[in-house]
Amino acid sequence: MSKKLIGACVFAQSGGPTAVINASAYGVIKTALESPEITDVYGAAHGITGILNGTLYDLRKEDPDELRLLLNTPSAAFGSCRHKMPDPAKDDTDYIRILETFKKFNIRYFFYNGGNDSMDTCKKISDFMQKSGYDCRVIGVPKTIDNDLVGTDHCPGYGSAAKYVATSIAELYKDINVYNTGMITVVEIMGRHAGWLTGAAALAELAGTPPDLIYLPEIPFDIDAFFDNVESIYKAKNNCFIAVSEGIRYADGTFVAESIPSATDGFGHAQLGGLAAVLSGMIKQRTGAKVRGIELSLLQRCAAHIASQTDIDESYLAGEAAVLHAVAGETGKMVAFTRERDSAGGYRCGVVLQPLSISANSEKTVPREWINASGTYVTQEFIDYALPLIQGENSRLIENGLPRFAKLKKMLAV
Amino acid sequence: MSKKLIGACVFAQSGGPTAVINASAYGVIKTALESPEITDVYGAAHGITGILNGTLYDLRKEDPDELRLLLNTPSAAFGSCRHKMPDPAKDDTDYIRILETFKKFNIRYFFYNGGNDSMDTCKKISDFMQKSGYDCRVIGVPKTIDNDLVGTDHCPGYGSAAKYVATSIAELYKDINVYNTGMITVVEIMGRHAGWLTGAAALAELAGTPPDLIYLPEIPFDIDAFFDNVESIYKAKNNCFIAVSEGIRYADGTFVAESIPSATDGFGHAQLGGLAAVLSGMIKQRTGAKVRGIELSLLQRCAAHIASQTDIDESYLAGEAAVLHAVAGETGKMVAFTRERDSAGGYRCGVVLQPLSISANSEKTVPREWINASGTYVTQEFIDYALPLIQGENSRLIENGLPRFAKLKKMLAV
Repeated sequence: MSKKLIGACVFAQSGGPTAVINASAYGVIKTALESPEITDVYGAAHGITGILNGTLYDLRKEDPDELRLLLNTPSAAFGSCRHKMPDPAKDDTDYIRILETFKKFNIRYFFYNGGNDSMDTCKKISDFMQKSGYDCRVIGVPKTIDNDLVGTDHCPGYGSAAKYVATSIAELYKDINVYNTGMITVVEIMGRHAGWLTGAAALAELAGTPPDLIYLPEIPFDIDAFFDNVESIYKAKNNCFIAVSEGIRYADGTFVAESIPSATDGFGHAQLGGLAAVLSGMIKQRTGAKVRGIELSLLQRCAAHIASQTDIDESYLAGEAAVLHAVAGETGKMVAFTRERDSAGGYRCGVVLQPLSISANSEKTVPREWINASGTYVTQEFIDYALPLIQGENSRLIENGLPRFAKLKKMLAV
Repeated sequence: MSKKLIGACVFAQSGGPTAVINASAYGVIKTALESPEITDVYGAAHGITGILNGTLYDLRKEDPDELRLLLNTPSAAFGSCRHKMPDPAKDDTDYIRILETFKKFNIRYFFYNGGNDSMDTCKKISDFMQKSGYDCRVIGVPKTIDNDLVGTDHCPGYGSAAKYVATSIAELYKDINVYNTGMITVVEIMGRHAGWLTGAAALAELAGTPPDLIYLPEIPFDIDAFFDNVESIYKAKNNCFIAVSEGIRYADGTFVAESIPSATDGFGHAQLGGLAAVLSGMIKQRTGAKVRGIELSLLQRCAAHIASQTDIDESYLAGEAAVLHAVAGETGKMVAFTRERDSAGGYRCGVVLQPLSISANSEKTVPREWINASGTYVTQEFIDYALPLIQGENSRLIENGLPRFAKLKKMLAV
């Protein structure tokens, strides 16, 4: 058993928010507030930048009932950032400032909730603190709708985004089949480098509403094969429903979304729509069919109203585990999920720790064998993988027919 | 009491679907199935076109449990159409064909569920049948997310779309405030001629997440005033959240979405995004700020997962009332809602009949006095009007974490 470390903790959120990143925040905060070793619980304003400039919120001053509402409050309650930490061997200014903040508030526990960049930041800070002889335990808490972190079966945030995507595809499928006049629909889904979220469109087949074609960024995009596929489906069915990742690229690495100059610079250098608009334009020109491009946009990462309860529970669990492991002596690790079987043979999520280096700056993509041979749909293995993660309807608080989000006081720590 | 009319009924759906048009279908079908006067219950494939070509589904052959799932199945279960009926004085071909279908199936009750075009169709058919001496009762059941039908306090379909819009605005507001780097967001909402749905963005203020500016099509769009408003808010707050109707027009009547040629014809005559993209481009060019355009697109009319239970109940009620009134002898009327007070002074919906002519081919827009003086937001009266309509969380059936839609056999009537 590691020696007891008494001191404050700070929690920070980084990168693009999710519908459930605040559920992890609540897991950290609630567990930390209940830990005898942890003297104060701080939330950093706007991720690591709040630690750099000493802007911390005193979370002991928050109403526990409001904190609990973080379970169903989307986006990052304390603000996020996209600050890339420099290599400390070349420039340690940031690290020295962080150490100053840690010393000022006697911070001995640092929990950072983010994607692979954030795990890299965690690792650099952990190494620096160790080198400086400052006793501080650092644990990374994963989150990303992209589900692209290495070392974990899946990521908090993915299940809710996948549920949003699958539900929206199911509803759109119903809508676009309403006329008998023929229609091609292109739905653009997030995930610039990994196709996990786009693949979740296939889950809609469980509702009897499968998309016809799914294109992931893992497979080089072949425009001729694409047109052939779309045209033959449209000819046979009088409609065609395509789910496509924003990140699809031609074999030469060019993003399809950026391959048509007028789409990216338009009038006055404005960007006129993304991939859905570009692809729709091309299909329309080629087929003459009625085409509709739909970009799910930010909704897919912030639609807490349709968040998966499994994802909420697991996100909370990840935050809780981070604190429990840190108090028990762990540091320099990332919380990760394993896939277990429950006694009935069903899905159960396990929690383990992984070295931070495992996921720092690398990306887990969809295995080739989980995509069909022609690169136009995912396999049953993919569906079996993703389906348990979207289970469970959340029981959020509603006031006036609208979501009741957490209202935090955010009182500055001094 | 009118004389008893024994015969079959046909139900048809028209125009753009909604999240709850099938709840009205269920109200008609269930009530018709239980009516001793109604011998057979048919659903027309693709609206009036199914009646024109005699493609009717025999709804007595459907499983009652599946029919019940129509309450939470979005889009038009029997298919919709955009068929505009000619003036029968000039061309009565369609009317004669309809009469033939009516005679073939002994149809004595016709229920048509749609917007103002459909009420016009109802009226023409009703008049023609009367002129032809064919005894048939015709009742229109309103639906439209646009909420622009004259003669009714509000329309089935509006409450659910408004709940989707308000909830999405609330969640997006949380998301876009996550970074402290400044952002202008433009959300494009449906409603080409009336601002009811765009105004519902203001309901998000009940969740503590109000948009900054709301532009409705009722007020001529002044681009200079728009830029001034956006810039001054952005300067003061470092962000600006704008909800805008797809139908905003300059004083000369030009749609803003169509005012920039490169946005509408782009490369190869493709349409690259709509108003959100156009406005975002203009704001970016003017301010240099980071701007994000979001089009809520079809989701706002088909997102049954967040449908208002009030809207579902009222949509059912409208269908039920159509049948009950028709059986009691009414014809040539449209079901309409009145706004009553319950015993506690709260909102209660009343059902009345209106002449079909009241809403045929006219549009109810948002009253000028429900929009603020500068034309940049709605007033408290608007909020008081719309808020009761988004109340109530629906209790839809879930299977595999996904909506379980009605599976109909759609057996052809012969």
